[in-house]
Amino acid sequence: MTGEGTAADPDSPVGEATTETYTASVIGGTGFTGGELLRILAGHPSFEVVQATSRSADNMTVGRSHPNLRGLDLRFSSPEELEPVDVLFSATPHGVSMERIDEYVETADTVVDLSADFRLPEAALYDEWYDGHSAPEYLERAEYALPEINRENLPGADLIAGGGCNATATILGLKPLVDAGVLGPETGEVVVDVKVGSSEGGAGGGAASSHPERSGVVRPYAPTGHRHEAEIEAYLGLSVSFTVHAVDMVRGASATCHVFPEEPVSKGDLWGAYRGAYADEPFMRIVSGSGGVYRYPEPKSVAGTNHGEVGFELDPGNRRVVVFSAIDNMTKGSAGQAVHAANVALGLPETAGLEFDGLHPVGSP
Amino acid sequence: MTGEGTAADPDSPVGEATTETYTASVIGGTGFTGGELLRILAGHPSFEVVQATSRSADNMTVGRSHPNLRGLDLRFSSPEELEPVDVLFSATPHGVSMERIDEYVETADTVVDLSADFRLPEAALYDEWYDGHSAPEYLERAEYALPEINRENLPGADLIAGGGCNATATILGLKPLVDAGVLGPETGEVVVDVKVGSSEGGAGGGAASSHPERSGVVRPYAPTGHRHEAEIEAYLGLSVSFTVHAVDMVRGASATCHVFPEEPVSKGDLWGAYRGAYADEPFMRIVSGSGGVYRYPEPKSVAGTNHGEVGFELDPGNRRVVVFSAIDNMTKGSAGQAVHAANVALGLPETAGLEFDGLHPVGSP
Amino acid sequence: MTGEGTAADPDSPVGEATTETYTASVIGGTGFTGGELLRILAGHPSFEVVQATSRSADNMTVGRSHPNLRGLDLRFSSPEELEPVDVLFSATPHGVSMERIDEYVETADTVVDLSADFRLPEAALYDEWYDGHSAPEYLERAEYALPEINRENLPGADLIAGGGCNATATILGLKPLVDAGVLGPETGEVVVDVKVGSSEGGAGGGAASSHPERSGVVRPYAPTGHRHEAEIEAYLGLSVSFTVHAVDMVRGASATCHVFPEEPVSKGDLWGAYRGAYADEPFMRIVSGSGGVYRYPEPKSVAGTNHGEVGFELDPGNRRVVVFSAIDNMTKGSAGQAVHAANVALGLPETAGLEFDGLHPVGSP
Amino acid sequence: MTGEGTAADPDSPVGEATTETYTASVIGGTGFTGGELLRILAGHPSFEVVQATSRSADNMTVGRSHPNLRGLDLRFSSPEELEPVDVLFSATPHGVSMERIDEYVETADTVVDLSADFRLPEAALYDEWYDGHSAPEYLERAEYALPEINRENLPGADLIAGGGCNATATILGLKPLVDAGVLGPETGEVVVDVKVGSSEGGAGGGAASSHPERSGVVRPYAPTGHRHEAEIEAYLGLSVSFTVHAVDMVRGASATCHVFPEEPVSKGDLWGAYRGAYADEPFMRIVSGSGGVYRYPEPKSVAGTNHGEVGFELDPGNRRVVVFSAIDNMTKGSAGQAVHAANVALGLPETAGLEFDGLHPVGSP
Repeated sequence: MTGEGTAADPDSPVGEATTETYTASVIGGTGFTGGELLRILAGHPSFEVVQATSRSADNMTVGRSHPNLRGLDLRFSSPEELEPVDVLFSATPHGVSMERIDEYVETADTVVDLSADFRLPEAALYDEWYDGHSAPEYLERAEYALPEINRENLPGADLIAGGGCNATATILGLKPLVDAGVLGPETGEVVVDVKVGSSEGGAGGGAASSHPERSGVVRPYAPTGHRHEAEIEAYLGLSVSFTVHAVDMVRGASATCHVFPEEPVSKGDLWGAYRGAYADEPFMRIVSGSGGVYRYPEPKSVAGTNHGEVGFELDPGNRRVVVFSAIDNMTKGSAGQAVHAANVALGLPETAGLEFDGLHPVGSP
Repeated sequence: MTGEGTAADPDSPVGEATTETYTASVIGGTGFTGGELLRILAGHPSFEVVQATSRSADNMTVGRSHPNLRGLDLRFSSPEELEPVDVLFSATPHGVSMERIDEYVETADTVVDLSADFRLPEAALYDEWYDGHSAPEYLERAEYALPEINRENLPGADLIAGGGCNATATILGLKPLVDAGVLGPETGEVVVDVKVGSSEGGAGGGAASSHPERSGVVRPYAPTGHRHEAEIEAYLGLSVSFTVHAVDMVRGASATCHVFPEEPVSKGDLWGAYRGAYADEPFMRIVSGSGGVYRYPEPKSVAGTNHGEVGFELDPGNRRVVVFSAIDNMTKGSAGQAVHAANVALGLPETAGLEFDGLHPVGSP
Repeated sequence: MTGEGTAADPDSPVGEATTETYTASVIGGTGFTGGELLRILAGHPSFEVVQATSRSADNMTVGRSHPNLRGLDLRFSSPEELEPVDVLFSATPHGVSMERIDEYVETADTVVDLSADFRLPEAALYDEWYDGHSAPEYLERAEYALPEINRENLPGADLIAGGGCNATATILGLKPLVDAGVLGPETGEVVVDVKVGSSEGGAGGGAASSHPERSGVVRPYAPTGHRHEAEIEAYLGLSVSFTVHAVDMVRGASATCHVFPEEPVSKGDLWGAYRGAYADEPFMRIVSGSGGVYRYPEPKSVAGTNHGEVGFELDPGNRRVVVFSAIDNMTKGSAGQAVHAANVALGLPETAGLEFDGLHPVGSP
Repeated sequence: MTGEGTAADPDSPVGEATTETYTASVIGGTGFTGGELLRILAGHPSFEVVQATSRSADNMTVGRSHPNLRGLDLRFSSPEELEPVDVLFSATPHGVSMERIDEYVETADTVVDLSADFRLPEAALYDEWYDGHSAPEYLERAEYALPEINRENLPGADLIAGGGCNATATILGLKPLVDAGVLGPETGEVVVDVKVGSSEGGAGGGAASSHPERSGVVRPYAPTGHRHEAEIEAYLGLSVSFTVHAVDMVRGASATCHVFPEEPVSKGDLWGAYRGAYADEPFMRIVSGSGGVYRYPEPKSVAGTNHGEVGFELDPGNRRVVVFSAIDNMTKGSAGQAVHAANVALGLPETAGLEFDGLHPVGSP
C-alpha cells in the first residue's frame, strides 16, 4: 500500500473534473474532526455537503457547535438515516466505523474514514493494539490516506483510511530517510518525541482536559505503548521508541525524531533525501535553519493548513540526525489529509479546498 | 463621510471587474499588519503584489518574516524606490505616511493607508491627540475605510484611511444604536472596556511585550486617554469613556460597551436595531444568547477572518444595554478592512480575498 | 456587619495565641478551593488539619488530587462522619452548607464557610438571587469574612461567611471611595467589568471549560444578573452595573470599575481615600502609575498570595475615575480570605500562614 | 566533586546555626534569576540582604522590577561598589563573574555564582563550549551547587557554582541510573529531549521572545550543540544526545530521557534505583503512574518551588526506559539550588527559605 510520492504534477488542475460537484456527508459532525471536515468542505469547489450527522445535536445548526460555521445553512441530522452520497466522510470515535462499514459502502461510492478502524493493514494488529476488529475483510480494501506515501494507490479507491495525527507527523518526518537508505530496520534505536495540542483529546474532555489542569502543561501522556506506534511501524517498516507529551497549544503536533545512522551522513545527503521526497509535493515544506525567528518546523507555522513542515539538524559529535516534523493535527493530521486523499481519489486538483496558508502572528492556534 | 451600510447587494459579483487584475504594493511589509496584507493579497483573485518594501529585511524573502508565506515567491525591496502600481497599501508606523503622501498619490491611483495618519477628519484633532499633522490638506480627501459605516463614499476613492482596531470594534458595536436613536450625545455615560491581544503592540516588542511579562496578563494599558477615543467620537458623534486592557491572546479585540438609554428599550428593539444595520452586511454577524458554548461575540470565533461579531444583553434592573463586539484586530481591525474598502472602491466583489471563515477549535489565535 | 478597616496594628503578633495549635477540618477537599485551604493550612503555624473530606476521593491521598501537596501525609475521608475540631472550613458547592449547618456548629467552635450560603445578610436576597435559604436563622449570626471591611466584628465570631471572588475584588476597589464620600447611592451609574480565570469554574469543568474551548478566550459569561451583584450591593450600599468575562488565565480576578463622581475629584483626593483605607492593611497595596512594566494592579502580581492590589486613574475630560482591583480568586478571593478571617477571629497574627509573596516572572498563574 | 546524596538527615535543624543571621548581596538583581534570589532570600530566616545591584535600575526600588517584591524596602545600587557581606550571590550574564571573581572573593566569605562561569570543572571545556576562561585558577576551587550529587563537598565551600537549568533537570533524572549501574558510558545512545519555558531567555528578550512570536510554540531552539551538554557529560560521566524545545510556559524545564540499558531492567529495579538515590532528599519526589491527572513529573507541579520530580516508565518491547524529570528552571534550576547549596555550605537547615510547596491549580506558571 506504500507509494513513491513522486509522479504527476499535483498542482495541475484536472480538466473537467473541477466542474463536477460531488455530494458528501459527514458522519459525526459535532466532534472537532467533523467540524474541521465541514469547514474544509464548505470552501471546497467540488463538494456539496448534503448531510452532517450528530446524535447529540440532532436538528441544531452546525454553527452552534462550530462558531466559525455560523454562516453555513446546515443542520445536523440523526446518524440513523444516511443520505446516499458520492463521498461519505466518517469522523466518529474508533470502533463505530467498523460496525457500520457495510452500510457506509452501500450509501456512498467513496468512503473516507478518519478513525483508526481501517488504518492498520492487518487484523492481527488490531488484536494486538486495539480490541480486535469486527470487519477484517475490509482491511485489505482500505487505502491509507496520506498521499505523500500512498498517492499511487488512491485514484479510484472506494475505502480510504485516514492516518493518525502523531503517526502522520512521524511518518512524514522519517519516510524520506527510509527511502534514501539512511534509516532502516537495522539502524538501531529511533527515538520519536511528540508534542501535541489539546484538540487531540477531542470535544468530550474530562478532568485532565479542563483548562485549569491542561494550561501550561508539559505532560507525558503516553510515555510508552501509544497506539500510533503500530501505524508508524506498519508504514515505515521499522520500530520506533515513541513518547507523546501534551503541551499548551490547541492545534498542532510536532515530532522530534532522533536517528543514529549506521553510516555517517552529510547535510547534503539530508537535503538530497528530503528534496527528493518532497520537492514536488504541494503541501510539504523543508524548513531548516534559514535564519530569522522561524528556522525549523513549528506547528504554529502550519496551523489551520494542510501543510507539513520537515527540517533537520546534524549532530556531528555522535552522528545523530535530529528530524523535526510539524503539522496541524486537525488538518494535515486528520480532516485535511482526508480531503486531500479524496481529491486524489476523484481526480480533482490536489489542493482544492485546502488553499488556506495560515496566519502570522498566531498564538496558540 | 458616514454612510448607511445598506444599499446594493454586497455579495453580488460585479461582472467584468473580477476578470481584471490590479497591481499592488505593500509599504512596510515586515510588520504584522504588512504581513497580514500580504497574506490576504496573495489569495486575492484580483490583486498582484509587485512590491513589498522593508528597510530592515531588504532583499530577504517575505517568508522569512512571515512563515505562513514561505510559498510566496517575493522578496522585500527598499522603501526608497516605489514601483508605480494601481493600489498602494501603506502599513508603516504612524507619522510616516503623512510625510510621504505626495509621493504615494503620484505612485498609485488608489492609496490605502493603514496608519492613523488620515483617519481623523480634522487637523485640529491631530493637534489634540497626536503631534499635529504635516499634510492636513489630504484629510478631507481621505475616506474612512470601514464599509459598514462609509460604504457610499468609497467607490472611486483615491485615498482611503483604515480605522484603528479598537475604534473599529467599538464603532461596529455602537453604530446601530446611534442609528436607531437608542444612543446619542445626550444619553449619558457610555463605558467602553476593550480587551486586546499582543499583536496590537506590533512586531517590535519591548520588555512589556516579552513572553514572560505578557503571558497571562490582565493589564490596564490605556486606562484613560487612548487615541482611538478621538476616532470613535468623530464617527459616532458622541463621547465614550474608554479603557483598554491587554489580555493573553495574540489576535483579537473585544469591546464591551455599557450603555444606559434615556428611554427603556426591549430586546426586540435591540434585535431590530442590529438587524437593520447588519442583515445585509457580508461580514457582520449578530450573536446573542443562542445556546451552546459560544453565545456571545468572541475574538476566537472570528480569528483570521474579516468578520465582525456583535451581540447584546439587556439588564432590566437598571436599564443598561451591554453590547459585545469582537473582531480580529489584524484583519477586520486593519488589513482585512483595508482590502474590503479597496474592493468597494474598485467595484470588486466585497468578499474577494476575504473568504476565510476561521477555525474551530482554536486556542489563543 | 461592616467595619472600618483601621484600628489595631494587624501585624503585631498576639502573644500567647501563637503558641497554641488549633485543630481544623476541610469539608470538600478535592475541589480547587478545598485544595487551596489545605495548602495554606499545611504551612500555617497554628493549625493542624485533622480531617479533609471528599466523597469522590475517599481514602485517597490529598496529593493525588493536588500535586503540590504530595508531601502531605493526609488522606481524604468520607464527609459523613465529621471529627470534632476547633475550626471547620467548608468548601462545598453552594447549598450544601445551609443543609448541614446545624451539624457544623456542633462539630466545631468556629465554622468558616466559603460558599455563598451565609454571605448575604438577609433571607430575602436568597429568594431573589438564589433558590431561597433553608437555614435563614443563621444569617444574622454569620460574619462577612473580609477583614478589610469587617475586621471589628470578626474576633470571637463562630460563623464566618467567605466573600465571593468577584465581589471581593469589586468591594476592595470601591469601598475606599464610598468611605471617602466620592461614591454613594446617588452617584449615578457605576460600571464594573470583571475578568476572571478558569479556576472560578471549579474542578468539575464542562464543555465550555475544556482547554480547546477555553484557551485564548475573551468570553462574556455573565453579561448581566451575576449573583455577586447582590453581595456587592449589600456591602457597598449601592447598585453597580456588573459584567464578568472569562479570559485566558487560571487564577485571578481583575475588576475595572468606572465611576463618575458627582463632584470633581483630584488625584490627591484619590490617593487620600485609598491611603486612608489601606495604609495599615497587611495585604493591600496601592499600585498606580509608578513606572516600569507593572504600573497598575494585575492578577499576575498577586498570584498565589493573599494580597489585593488597587489602583486608579483619572479621566479629566469626563470626570471619570477608573479603579483597578486585582486579586487571586483562589486566595484573597476565597481560601486566603477565609484563613485571614479565622486568624482575626482567633486572635492570631493576621498574616500567619499567608506570607507567600508571589513569583516573578509568572505566566498565566 | 561528585557526592553520594545520602548521608546525614537533611531535615534536621542544625542547632545554633539557625539563630545566626548572614548578610548577603545579590549582584545582577533586575534579571529574572536575580529577582528569584531576592524573593527567596527575603523569606529566608537566616539571611539579610544588604545590597542588590543593578546597572540599569540604580536607585530604583526592587519592587519596580519585580512586582511580587513591592513590600520589600530595598533599592538597587550600582554594581561598582560592593558591600562586604557574608555571602555574595551573583546572577549576572555569563562572562561577568570570571572577570570580577577576585573582587568577589575579597568581598564575601562565600561566593555563589549562578552563571556558567565556574560550573565546568576544566578550562579546556570552556575553550570547547564557550569563549575560553579568564580565571581558570578558580575552577578547581569551585564546588558544583547541586546537593543531590555534591552534598559532601559543600560544607565550608567558599566558591559555589550553580548548575544550568536544563543540565540540572537531566542530571537529576539520570544520576540514579548511573549510580545503580543501569546506565554508563558504554550503554549506547541516551536521548534527552528538553522542553523549557520562556523565562530561560532572561528579561532582555528579543523578537523571538516577544509574546506574539513566542506564544503557543513548540520551537526547536537548540537542536544540537547546547552548552549544557558539556555540564551533563562532566557530572554524569557519559555523553547524551541533547535537544531543547521552547514551549508555551514561563517557568519550568522538563527533561524526557530515553535510555536503552544493556541488560533488561524491571520496574522494581527502577524503583530501587530512584528510591535509593532520593528517599532521603528533602526536595526530590518520585512520581510514577500513581493515578489521577498528575501521574508523571510536570513542571506545573513544582512551579515556584525547589522541588524536583522524577518518574519513569518501562517500554518492554524494546527495552527502553523513559525517564521524566521536571523542575522550575528559576528555582531548583537556578536560584533555589543556589540557596540550597548555601544552606548546606553554612550548616543551615537545608530547606530554610525554600518551604514553598507550589500551587494547584496553576496555569502556565
